[in-house]
Amino acid sequence: MKALVYLGPGTKALEERAKPEVAAPTDAIVKITKTTICGTDLHILKGDVPTCQPGRILGHEGVGVVEHTGSAVTAFKPGDRVLISCISACGKCVYCRKLMFSHCTAGGWILGNSIDGTQAEFVRIPHADTSLYPIPDGADEEALVMLSDILPTGFECGVLNGKVQPGNTVAIVGAGPIGLAVLLTAQFYSPAKIIMIDIDDNRLAVAKRFGATAAINSADGKAAETVMKMTGDLGVDTAIEAVGIPATFELCEKIIAPGGTIANIGVHGTKVALHLERLWDRNITITTRLVDTASTPTLLNILHSHRIDPKLLITHRFTLDRILDAYETFGHAASTGALKVIIEA
Amino acid sequence: MKALVYLGPGTKALEERAKPEVAAPTDAIVKITKTTICGTDLHILKGDVPTCQPGRILGHEGVGVVEHTGSAVTAFKPGDRVLISCISACGKCVYCRKLMFSHCTAGGWILGNSIDGTQAEFVRIPHADTSLYPIPDGADEEALVMLSDILPTGFECGVLNGKVQPGNTVAIVGAGPIGLAVLLTAQFYSPAKIIMIDIDDNRLAVAKRFGATAAINSADGKAAETVMKMTGDLGVDTAIEAVGIPATFELCEKIIAPGGTIANIGVHGTKVALHLERLWDRNITITTRLVDTASTPTLLNILHSHRIDPKLLITHRFTLDRILDAYETFGHAASTGALKVIIEA
Amino acid sequence: MKALVYLGPGTKALEERAKPEVAAPTDAIVKITKTTICGTDLHILKGDVPTCQPGRILGHEGVGVVEHTGSAVTAFKPGDRVLISCISACGKCVYCRKLMFSHCTAGGWILGNSIDGTQAEFVRIPHADTSLYPIPDGADEEALVMLSDILPTGFECGVLNGKVQPGNTVAIVGAGPIGLAVLLTAQFYSPAKIIMIDIDDNRLAVAKRFGATAAINSADGKAAETVMKMTGDLGVDTAIEAVGIPATFELCEKIIAPGGTIANIGVHGTKVALHLERLWDRNITITTRLVDTASTPTLLNILHSHRIDPKLLITHRFTLDRILDAYETFGHAASTGALKVIIEA
Amino acid sequence: MKALVYLGPGTKALEERAKPEVAAPTDAIVKITKTTICGTDLHILKGDVPTCQPGRILGHEGVGVVEHTGSAVTAFKPGDRVLISCISACGKCVYCRKLMFSHCTAGGWILGNSIDGTQAEFVRIPHADTSLYPIPDGADEEALVMLSDILPTGFECGVLNGKVQPGNTVAIVGAGPIGLAVLLTAQFYSPAKIIMIDIDDNRLAVAKRFGATAAINSADGKAAETVMKMTGDLGVDTAIEAVGIPATFELCEKIIAPGGTIANIGVHGTKVALHLERLWDRNITITTRLVDTASTPTLLNILHSHRIDPKLLITHRFTLDRILDAYETFGHAASTGALKVIIEA
Repeated sequence: MKALVYLGPGTKALEERAKPEVAAPTDAIVKITKTTICGTDLHILKGDVPTCQPGRILGHEGVGVVEHTGSAVTAFKPGDRVLISCISACGKCVYCRKLMFSHCTAGGWILGNSIDGTQAEFVRIPHADTSLYPIPDGADEEALVMLSDILPTGFECGVLNGKVQPGNTVAIVGAGPIGLAVLLTAQFYSPAKIIMIDIDDNRLAVAKRFGATAAINSADGKAAETVMKMTGDLGVDTAIEAVGIPATFELCEKIIAPGGTIANIGVHGTKVALHLERLWDRNITITTRLVDTASTPTLLNILHSHRIDPKLLITHRFTLDRILDAYETFGHAASTGALKVIIEA
Repeated sequence: MKALVYLGPGTKALEERAKPEVAAPTDAIVKITKTTICGTDLHILKGDVPTCQPGRILGHEGVGVVEHTGSAVTAFKPGDRVLISCISACGKCVYCRKLMFSHCTAGGWILGNSIDGTQAEFVRIPHADTSLYPIPDGADEEALVMLSDILPTGFECGVLNGKVQPGNTVAIVGAGPIGLAVLLTAQFYSPAKIIMIDIDDNRLAVAKRFGATAAINSADGKAAETVMKMTGDLGVDTAIEAVGIPATFELCEKIIAPGGTIANIGVHGTKVALHLERLWDRNITITTRLVDTASTPTLLNILHSHRIDPKLLITHRFTLDRILDAYETFGHAASTGALKVIIEA
Repeated sequence: MKALVYLGPGTKALEERAKPEVAAPTDAIVKITKTTICGTDLHILKGDVPTCQPGRILGHEGVGVVEHTGSAVTAFKPGDRVLISCISACGKCVYCRKLMFSHCTAGGWILGNSIDGTQAEFVRIPHADTSLYPIPDGADEEALVMLSDILPTGFECGVLNGKVQPGNTVAIVGAGPIGLAVLLTAQFYSPAKIIMIDIDDNRLAVAKRFGATAAINSADGKAAETVMKMTGDLGVDTAIEAVGIPATFELCEKIIAPGGTIANIGVHGTKVALHLERLWDRNITITTRLVDTASTPTLLNILHSHRIDPKLLITHRFTLDRILDAYETFGHAASTGALKVIIEA
Repeated sequence: MKALVYLGPGTKALEERAKPEVAAPTDAIVKITKTTICGTDLHILKGDVPTCQPGRILGHEGVGVVEHTGSAVTAFKPGDRVLISCISACGKCVYCRKLMFSHCTAGGWILGNSIDGTQAEFVRIPHADTSLYPIPDGADEEALVMLSDILPTGFECGVLNGKVQPGNTVAIVGAGPIGLAVLLTAQFYSPAKIIMIDIDDNRLAVAKRFGATAAINSADGKAAETVMKMTGDLGVDTAIEAVGIPATFELCEKIIAPGGTIANIGVHGTKVALHLERLWDRNITITTRLVDTASTPTLLNILHSHRIDPKLLITHRFTLDRILDAYETFGHAASTGALKVIIEA
């Protein structure tokens, strides 16, 4: 089968690989119909993710059809259409028993990381009963691909951790695909104001179309000042960091209201300065989270009720044959305007 | 009347001052029977608290008897015995309506800070109806003084914010009076393990007597390692910072389990390093808080039911005449072993 | 001034009464600009509310302009435009300190009940600082009248108590004004399905326009069966009782899913049968609540952000002169189609 | 092997039965070392539990040693000492994914009900990985037997559902084994007052020894009056029903404070009267629950930390040979004073 393989920092190729086989009784083999590329895949390609070694098939998102199942799989059978979660969960360990699937001692984020992933014609899914979700015939597969990772990440790490509530004021720092996923899912809770902050005017324009009530280009270094003005010097109830660098995290520290919550989503490569000399008495909360995908059933319900349109995030479409072009397009988002790209397998 | 007055960095005196008078219809004048000294008073004396100007009577803790009340005070009358909260709350503003009295726009921590305080024979209490608490005749006034500030601080900023729960593992970093107040109130929730960390063996010995299940002297720089060993490399569910310096906050970052909470109580004078490069995917929560004293009714109930003995924290007793000696004793805790000192007015 | 006065069971009149005066330092006198009639006013007129005695001016909803304030009122001054809460809150008592204003020991629902109300040219508002809310100049007063009672009732007693969550399934039993207020405010949380149940096809048609995803006429006695069919025999996550009779409460018992919540809003005159022989092991929650109006600031934020249009509830408009006609119209809703009527003072 | 078999209403026998075998890859066979009898077993023997058919081996509590495991069991191996949960959980279904194991679509309470149970030398445990808990060598097996059902039932259905909190006032109606399990676990949260209500003075005396702060014999029909007097006419924050008849549930309705919670544990055979005509505006919550045993890891932590002594509940001990005597003793608790009886296999 064809598969996109990581060959070491800066190198990847579309290669011919053997079809995966059931290795444990809880495995399922899924034929991929649609997958996508995540910002994390770009991190791997830079050599930033040491758990991912050369030779690995990338990809942790996708939908497909069950091809084979191990003897202990009871919830799925060949022919079933499924959504693949980016997080594999054994359902048994101490973390799974707390619904903190991201830290599953036998799973977590392993797909396209420590085991082969979804940017291929087939993929082996461990712990299939608790890592796949059934999808109805005729469901919109492109929309569903957004539920593998980006929507639960925005929803859980940003919206839920950030305690977005009706009537509140929310700032989202970073209008890339993740920030926009936060924007879409934050609206489940009807905040009164959603302020989007980025340095790219195009992305801010997209954010306004997606429901942001205000957009601030922070390139001039005055975003904090502007937010404080917009909020009558109170600051925001929730600030969501969706970039992953010290400057954006510290911006969140500056604009958070007393009693507010900073929800970090960004993948940080370095420490940040936490200004406790200003914040120790401000009654704030800061959260971090790797997505658990515990909200997937909720998101599926919302998708089926048409209260969200995740396809808004899709800007480009490719076949698996042309996945290298897809990486080009996705990797140069500033010029291509790419948000999420669909790869049809 | 006699009063302890701050005269500028490094200087204080017991002076004769005019008795305070009702200035607003919501004021009460309270005759102090017992008060105490807080670590924050020492900060003021170092000149670290710019809101507190020379000439100010210090003190924000105490019990006493109502002497006069303004025309709009309905909950108290002369002769009533009262507990004074360190936080004044108007009961009307946006923060009071969220029970976040610490940020009351017409109050907050003002006693012995921006208005005259309780280390005197009398004190004016603004917003008396919502800043005083009735105490029964015959109640133990020494125990009650601990409810003005130190117990609600330990309980709200440490135990409640830290989400201490039955069966959990808690680390308290700092075994001073605040850390010990956390230790006493954490036991309301029956954690399985309470690990106390400090550099003073005497304080650690006190902590063991007060209910700590383990004590670690962190002077050797190996506290993190020891905690991880004690917890089977999982870390602690709750880490409570009760010192206020970068080293102790970063120790909390090192020992927190995935899914855990770091509750900061320490008054920090400088920023700390937040290692998001290790913590971004650990599903942790960090909180800060100035005590709201919203838990005072709860703490009074618990005190009356004899499920806590706050007098354990009291090591020395003085009369108001000898308050300068009391400051000496409290200010040299390492040698005197002082925790809380009672001043009888 | 003109005022609508309750004269005993079945009798009321528009009378000339003396303008109210400040009686306590915390009072404000408000000139009413707009008010409305509540279903509870009809209950009073039937003689069902013993706390309301003949001679009482009715009404507990409205907006107006502050005319005079007592000496202890600090948040309002003459000329301020205000929203009147149906609940008076002293801000000091044990219940107010828990944000349970409905049970305020010096307030609660007293307006138009144990003290004179808002269906008049002027009204005296006790505890003005904590019972009135400032409204901006130019705000839509008709929409705001809906925030005195009906929207917070639907939101707090129905939506919040019922724990409506994104993706969930909600049934609302009763499509009168309160049920419709639930319907409008439930959408703040993006439930996947909202099933409206009533015996009046006109009201069900209104519900569909207001956002219900399904409507069931329960006149045939088969509503429970229909709901179970619609939900794949699971039942609903939240069932909200907005009628107040045994049959509708028992319907909620029949359709609630394991783990679900029944939120009662209805004013019941008699006991209901709780079928614990079927429900004891179903992990359900049942709640009751008199509105606290603790959510009023939230609702004001949402209103100002245009995420709700409460004027949808208004079907008729009258001047105070014609308030008897307004009662006629409102009292015969089945034939007039009345939901809420606006009275302009 | 020997096994206690239900033979139809009123009949049971100690019979010789075939040793169970692994039937599904997720099964484990456990050699029982200690088990006990539950009040529910008596219900079955009366013929009150239609899902339990004649021929069934009873018992859903116990500890033992793993004898065999199916091919998909990964968390346990022969020789492991285990605690058996009364609830079998597949870990995969929609309810297990919400930690509502009681409603597991492939499990729930099936042991000693729809499949053979633990009052035997061996038992087959389905879904072993998520239905057994490892116990350390040398752990106190008698104490652990209390963690199969009675302690999690008291804790989850009573204490957690009842929202017992530090400083609160709790009433427990029914001082049988379940009510006493509530009493023991309620103390994890340091309520200020725990009022025990029963008609048996001996059980009330036990309750006082176990930590009740007050005991009321309700035989005179004045319990509600007495509770209201004890609470200054406020009522209790939490009322826990641990009997299962209308009179005791209605007692809870009478003593609940505004804002309080009634947590039902009792297994009811008939409907009760819910007096909404008095309660509709009291802001109360009522909960029901079949134990999920989701709290088992927490209870194991607490047990290992010696913060609870569940053996207090054990009054009698028998060998499996004498299990009929054990039933006699347990079934005549009023005369024998039996609480929990240990059966050694």
